[in-house]
Amino acid sequence: MQFHHHGYVSGNPLLRDAAGTGLDRPAELPAEVDVLIIGSGPAGMLAAAQLAQFPEINTRIIERREGRLEIGQADGIQARSVETFQAFGFAGRITEEAYRITEMAFWKPDPADPSRIHRAARAVDDPTGISEFPHLIVNQARVLDYFAEVMANSPTRMTPDYGLEFRGLEIADSGEYPVSITLADAAGNPRSVRAKYVIGADGARSGVRAAIGCTLAGDQAAHAWGVMDALAVTDFPDIRTKCAIQSEDGGNILLIPREGGHLFRMYVDLGEVPEGDHGAVRATGIEEIIDRANRILAPYALDVKNIAWHSVYEVGHRLTDRFDDVPTELIGTRSPRVFITGDACHTHSAKAGQGMNVSMQDGFNLGWKLGHVLSGRGPEALLATYSAERQVIAKNLIDFDREWSTLMATRPEDLADPTELEDFYVRTAEFPAGFMTQYPPSILTGEATHQGLAAGFPIGKRFKSAPVIRVADANPVHLGHLHLADGRWRIYVFADRAGRAAEDWAAWALTDERSPLRVYAAEGEDLDALFDVKIIYPGAHTAVDLGAVPPVFLPRSGPLGLIDYEKVFAAGEAGEDIFSARSIAAEGAVVVVRPDQYVAHVLPLESTTGLAEFFAGNLNAR
Amino acid sequence: MQFHHHGYVSGNPLLRDAAGTGLDRPAELPAEVDVLIIGSGPAGMLAAAQLAQFPEINTRIIERREGRLEIGQADGIQARSVETFQAFGFAGRITEEAYRITEMAFWKPDPADPSRIHRAARAVDDPTGISEFPHLIVNQARVLDYFAEVMANSPTRMTPDYGLEFRGLEIADSGEYPVSITLADAAGNPRSVRAKYVIGADGARSGVRAAIGCTLAGDQAAHAWGVMDALAVTDFPDIRTKCAIQSEDGGNILLIPREGGHLFRMYVDLGEVPEGDHGAVRATGIEEIIDRANRILAPYALDVKNIAWHSVYEVGHRLTDRFDDVPTELIGTRSPRVFITGDACHTHSAKAGQGMNVSMQDGFNLGWKLGHVLSGRGPEALLATYSAERQVIAKNLIDFDREWSTLMATRPEDLADPTELEDFYVRTAEFPAGFMTQYPPSILTGEATHQGLAAGFPIGKRFKSAPVIRVADANPVHLGHLHLADGRWRIYVFADRAGRAAEDWAAWALTDERSPLRVYAAEGEDLDALFDVKIIYPGAHTAVDLGAVPPVFLPRSGPLGLIDYEKVFAAGEAGEDIFSARSIAAEGAVVVVRPDQYVAHVLPLESTTGLAEFFAGNLNAR
Repeated sequence: MQFHHHGYVSGNPLLRDAAGTGLDRPAELPAEVDVLIIGSGPAGMLAAAQLAQFPEINTRIIERREGRLEIGQADGIQARSVETFQAFGFAGRITEEAYRITEMAFWKPDPADPSRIHRAARAVDDPTGISEFPHLIVNQARVLDYFAEVMANSPTRMTPDYGLEFRGLEIADSGEYPVSITLADAAGNPRSVRAKYVIGADGARSGVRAAIGCTLAGDQAAHAWGVMDALAVTDFPDIRTKCAIQSEDGGNILLIPREGGHLFRMYVDLGEVPEGDHGAVRATGIEEIIDRANRILAPYALDVKNIAWHSVYEVGHRLTDRFDDVPTELIGTRSPRVFITGDACHTHSAKAGQGMNVSMQDGFNLGWKLGHVLSGRGPEALLATYSAERQVIAKNLIDFDREWSTLMATRPEDLADPTELEDFYVRTAEFPAGFMTQYPPSILTGEATHQGLAAGFPIGKRFKSAPVIRVADANPVHLGHLHLADGRWRIYVFADRAGRAAEDWAAWALTDERSPLRVYAAEGEDLDALFDVKIIYPGAHTAVDLGAVPPVFLPRSGPLGLIDYEKVFAAGEAGEDIFSARSIAAEGAVVVVRPDQYVAHVLPLESTTGLAEFFAGNLNAR
Repeated sequence: MQFHHHGYVSGNPLLRDAAGTGLDRPAELPAEVDVLIIGSGPAGMLAAAQLAQFPEINTRIIERREGRLEIGQADGIQARSVETFQAFGFAGRITEEAYRITEMAFWKPDPADPSRIHRAARAVDDPTGISEFPHLIVNQARVLDYFAEVMANSPTRMTPDYGLEFRGLEIADSGEYPVSITLADAAGNPRSVRAKYVIGADGARSGVRAAIGCTLAGDQAAHAWGVMDALAVTDFPDIRTKCAIQSEDGGNILLIPREGGHLFRMYVDLGEVPEGDHGAVRATGIEEIIDRANRILAPYALDVKNIAWHSVYEVGHRLTDRFDDVPTELIGTRSPRVFITGDACHTHSAKAGQGMNVSMQDGFNLGWKLGHVLSGRGPEALLATYSAERQVIAKNLIDFDREWSTLMATRPEDLADPTELEDFYVRTAEFPAGFMTQYPPSILTGEATHQGLAAGFPIGKRFKSAPVIRVADANPVHLGHLHLADGRWRIYVFADRAGRAAEDWAAWALTDERSPLRVYAAEGEDLDALFDVKIIYPGAHTAVDLGAVPPVFLPRSGPLGLIDYEKVFAAGEAGEDIFSARSIAAEGAVVVVRPDQYVAHVLPLESTTGLAEFFAGNLNAR
């Protein structure tokens, strides 16, 4: 954590100096804002926390509820989300309070007596080490609390505007604030706001989605689930383990242990909803859900002591064909003004624990792009990439979830193979962990021409961290964990063995007029304001002479012009180092990473032209 | 982290329900308190944070300053202190914001040109893995902030009472509140308070020490240091590394990089203070300190941009012969009523980074004992063990610091061996890391008769953690990190290979009338209210059938009678498991650990009598 560079900080270093719109932020929602976010769920709060890092942008987030979420809703946190939390500074804290999944158990009818379930299999949750981050379970309410803290501690001092409901919006063809939004306060009084951009993060029944003429398409058939967060005494021995439980009569439960050591969530399958049910299934009472759970768990018994929350819901697998207000046939003719995220775009079962995670990545993808456009750093063309990149991810999610939830609802005797369920779980682990996303070439994603120089950093996938040694203080650190959600691009210079090419690159980057560090630098900004440029040397940290490291890697920062020592790294012991772990070529490589942590490009150190050309497509000369 | 067991917790799980004295805690200092702590430094705040966990005890902590400490003072955090922070729930967070020491560099006159310093050696900070916790540097102000948060989140909702200064105290022979204390508020108005016990944590010029007739004895000679917390630009390459720097003219600097990546502290040696100096050395200006630093650092230059704090201080090596109000000749005839801790007892140089750490362990040692006595759990005899245990630790500290600070102030040519300084640093690493403390046999520390059953848990030393697998959720956890500062004793049952002896032990513990779980149980308390009893099975967690684990290891807790699943562990893979790492015998062992994390006893599983007898000396039957 870096601080004190603007002078001594006595208190909590997470609380940053207020700046820009945070200096006199009005408590009331103003009549004109840069970005209006509708809905304070995971997608909206992440986008808000990201935009909060741009002091010059006036972002507000409204929420229909009168205050913070207290209970219920999503709880599955895949490793990619914890990685994202790291970028927002709270991965460590939320991990401490969360439940961690390390194994999953599969319970099925005991062949010796099918009226009794038995543990048929166990599967390790991440057997191949997909991520160094854990797979967690923690209530969505706490995730939102942490994002609210990030916003409040940011230069913009953002807080959600509670008690305001979306009623409708209109988009004008021109004007500085072309989107006119109508809201209503808790008493039903109308409020009008004008915005440059709107993010609809208002859930499965999204009003913003309707307002921009999008519809969810997909399965007509809905499946119903009873879900409860319960405190109970039971002799079921795996009550603290994630379990898929199938009973002889076809009943099935997904059991998710929860944070704190006592609470658990059960999804109890209520089956396909017959046509013409008209929501009757939602009247299923908590007693019936508990009864079903007990029947499925036999011979074990569940003595429920307290129900913290419960719900019955029906869900189909549905998706919108676009995530913004530009109809498909008009893509490329104008920039979007209104975006939808999360459940507003994609609905599916809760069984794979994906919803909150994919929604947050929607917000992460969109947040920095709006930040760049509104702060003048990037061109409007960035905005169309949101729908282009994320719609296909949602489609993949829905396909995955359809397969998984169908498998979970299949009677054991109807499976092609008795271990089909657990085999699928293990085989597809990278998807639910959140790491299958790979963006195709675009203005943000280069062609894989030079991928071989850094095979372990596939272009379009998120930058997979590895340990390195920080030279100045000999600290072992995880390189990717230093990537904060500050809206900056990362340029990782993996030095060639001889070091000569890296030196040439450094001289070019600092002085050449085509260098992105010069082309996109704004007057008076620190050298690393837009690009966080780091070098990683092969070999031991003791072999690096800081006095000989090129100055572009030791930039001055802040009003005192202090040297930033945290951009120079060494690989450490050969064999287990980042060069071998990520297959970096001996001639070195430049790895460019987007603000949302996806690898944008891999280039040779010598290809300065390639680097300059890449950024010409996604940044504005200043 | 365990919560929800008293019902669903929606918000921050670190914020516990108010109880006891926390339910209607008066904002103003009351006229009568159970414990009055004088001074909100590390020793006082730790003792307060510990006592805050006892809802029935009314503890107040006063501080002369008008508010929290903002800057300056100690910053070295040894691994034992981080281990202690873990017990208070903030090790992870403070580690994230701290500077971490992994290496130390030794700079000396370059033999080729002694007017220039060069890096003569590097030493790894913890080459033998003394602790899994890091060695940190962070300002004392932040340490105190975290303890204040622990207090505020505790059932007693404690906060320091600022702006009150100690003036004097008297101790009566009898009465419920025998200690009468006179205070003064910021305006100088006197205030009177009566207390059952007083902790003097009021620093090197302690008024409490004087009031109980203790004096510091030791070296008359004082050594002077200029110290500064600076932000600077420099070409000295190790500015982010802990360094001992000696120059040709005998000048020397201890350089301590600080949290945040930019700030550093320098201790600049000002030499022995001549007799009759009468504090004149303290007039040394910051310019002179910076000049001296620059001369020592030649050929490197220090361009200071900002001084966050600086001071000149003189210090001798001094110690009191007792840490409470009972004169040596009266020990055993009456119980102490007034205690002194930290700098009030021991003063020495800052060069070994020990002061804050040893002071906190004073507070940890004393806090739970007062908690046990005042809550009726333990006999008054506990209180005399504080001075008995801690005075000798302070003596060891002063001996160590004298040797280290003398070595650091010795000209290179006067050393017996050119590498004497770094050799001493590496050889003695366990001491400054805080792990040399070993309490001798007493009512709290058993004889080492059965030490061989658990050779890796030396009786009298702190319980050195090792990884285990929690059976219920297959989570890898560090056993010792689950030991919270909640005032409870820990009983670790390491099961025998056959498991029979552990089963017998469990049956005895739950049902035998001589079992400590029955003798010391208070009406209506949870089974684990005073003893946190855990079992560790050899072998894989998948081999443990939770349904067959004795109920004493799966106790019910809270008003709902929920099962606590976090007391049953497996060793995991043979070879690297806790049984081999800590040399646990095949026949198993019972390891008893004090509330302040020191191993109190090692006994055979069969020695239930030995266990019962041990607790008879330090607990009250209820």
